[in-house]
Amino acid sequence: MSEWLHDAGGAGFAHAYLIEEELYRGRSAFQEIRVIVNPDFGRMLVLDDAVQTSERDEFVYHEMLAHVPLVAHPAPRRLLIIGGGDGGLLEEALKHPLAEAVMVEIDREVVEVTRRFLPQIPGGAFDDPRTRLVIGDGIRYVSASAETFDVILVDSTDPKGPAVGLFSEAFYADVRRRLRPGGLAAVQSGSPLYQLELLRAVRAGLGKVFPVVSTYLATVPTYPGALWSFTIGATGGDPAQTPAEEVARRTAGFDLQYLTPAGFRAAFDLPPFLARDLGIAG
Amino acid sequence: MSEWLHDAGGAGFAHAYLIEEELYRGRSAFQEIRVIVNPDFGRMLVLDDAVQTSERDEFVYHEMLAHVPLVAHPAPRRLLIIGGGDGGLLEEALKHPLAEAVMVEIDREVVEVTRRFLPQIPGGAFDDPRTRLVIGDGIRYVSASAETFDVILVDSTDPKGPAVGLFSEAFYADVRRRLRPGGLAAVQSGSPLYQLELLRAVRAGLGKVFPVVSTYLATVPTYPGALWSFTIGATGGDPAQTPAEEVARRTAGFDLQYLTPAGFRAAFDLPPFLARDLGIAG
Repeated sequence: MSEWLHDAGGAGFAHAYLIEEELYRGRSAFQEIRVIVNPDFGRMLVLDDAVQTSERDEFVYHEMLAHVPLVAHPAPRRLLIIGGGDGGLLEEALKHPLAEAVMVEIDREVVEVTRRFLPQIPGGAFDDPRTRLVIGDGIRYVSASAETFDVILVDSTDPKGPAVGLFSEAFYADVRRRLRPGGLAAVQSGSPLYQLELLRAVRAGLGKVFPVVSTYLATVPTYPGALWSFTIGATGGDPAQTPAEEVARRTAGFDLQYLTPAGFRAAFDLPPFLARDLGIAG
Repeated sequence: MSEWLHDAGGAGFAHAYLIEEELYRGRSAFQEIRVIVNPDFGRMLVLDDAVQTSERDEFVYHEMLAHVPLVAHPAPRRLLIIGGGDGGLLEEALKHPLAEAVMVEIDREVVEVTRRFLPQIPGGAFDDPRTRLVIGDGIRYVSASAETFDVILVDSTDPKGPAVGLFSEAFYADVRRRLRPGGLAAVQSGSPLYQLELLRAVRAGLGKVFPVVSTYLATVPTYPGALWSFTIGATGGDPAQTPAEEVARRTAGFDLQYLTPAGFRAAFDLPPFLARDLGIAG
């Protein structure tokens, strides 16, 4: 098999991956799910032709979406994850001394396919006694549930299909209502290169319900353009101000592969081209 | 025209660019030179199918290879650039109060094609009275010349064809001999993802002639994998220790689009996966 997968990052730009082997291909009620093997990135989970994660670089996205907000909260005990069906985010989050982690994933088959073909990404996270996996619509969950959380993480796909509502102001307002005092929410907010309007909308939407909105970046080699954004809406202090010593203390023993104590603060130090694009004074 | 350019970053990974229009295609004595137009990145300079620079993101690579070493030197007056035919690096470097900038580029046609089709990348750099452009072999130049410099920047292509010698220990020894007291050299040292052996060899080679070797990273969206490395060999202090205030003072008014004062230090803060791969204690 010498087919290539094209993961588009704009009208005329894509990451291309040689498909050495296709381990799985199926269509769930929500999307096409594939697991391919690539010589450079190993096994890769692909949803509707968009690479979600790979054996080789999964740690970047999962460490950055888990530990930055969890460390920015002084003492998170209850966590909610919306999406994140591959379990990599959950696995990182459970390194913190949480009491409970509820994960609401809409597509059961993503969880099942990952557990079968990419078991090292969730590790033992789905069997952790602190984990409660809910197969259902995260939008409905935050709207209907009476539960509250210290941290809410939104690990969504691109704003297409079932994920569209995860970028809406109504959803952010519901997320805000599900937070305990001092709580915060973090969302993947897309590519600052080819989804700038999305990132602007996320920041504006979160800004309507949170006093503090702060965007940070990471370099995810398997996402188109690699430069990727995350945005936190906080009810407490500015997450960017978390001291490096606090990051080091709270992540000691985590065996991180991407995030460093100094890198935490640096991730919020947006390059001027982007700060300008977002209307943030330099 | 709906052809795509594939810029390979490994056996099974490439960045793919739609070629909206091809403005130039020719073969020099050294390589195939193309200028294409892409809807996402604008005009792109392509040498032997490898993207060298684009209108949209040229500032990342050029700012990082120019200003990090130039600011790490306390007062650079004489600069040598090896390669860098598109002039983007020269343009950034000339923002500093240099007395002279000598640029040795092997391929005259790269300079000519860039000036014709991508004139905003060099800007007025080639006409700056401080610039001396030498069309010739940089390897021979550092070996034969008796001139000395405060900073030497090596802006090479991948180690193929004429660029192979720019990654050799003999070349680094000659570079070292061309430096004035307290001088330093910086080289583009490849992708930490798919050219790790190259990066290791660069660090080892520089380590044989420089007491201080320090690698830093930037995210260049149009280079495969985006994460890119640069390595400095220094005869003086550790470049990474340059205070943010010094960076701010020395780059004031430069209108930088990527580098920030805090980002200077952060660029040297390698993610643990890479520090481990390079055998650097965390």
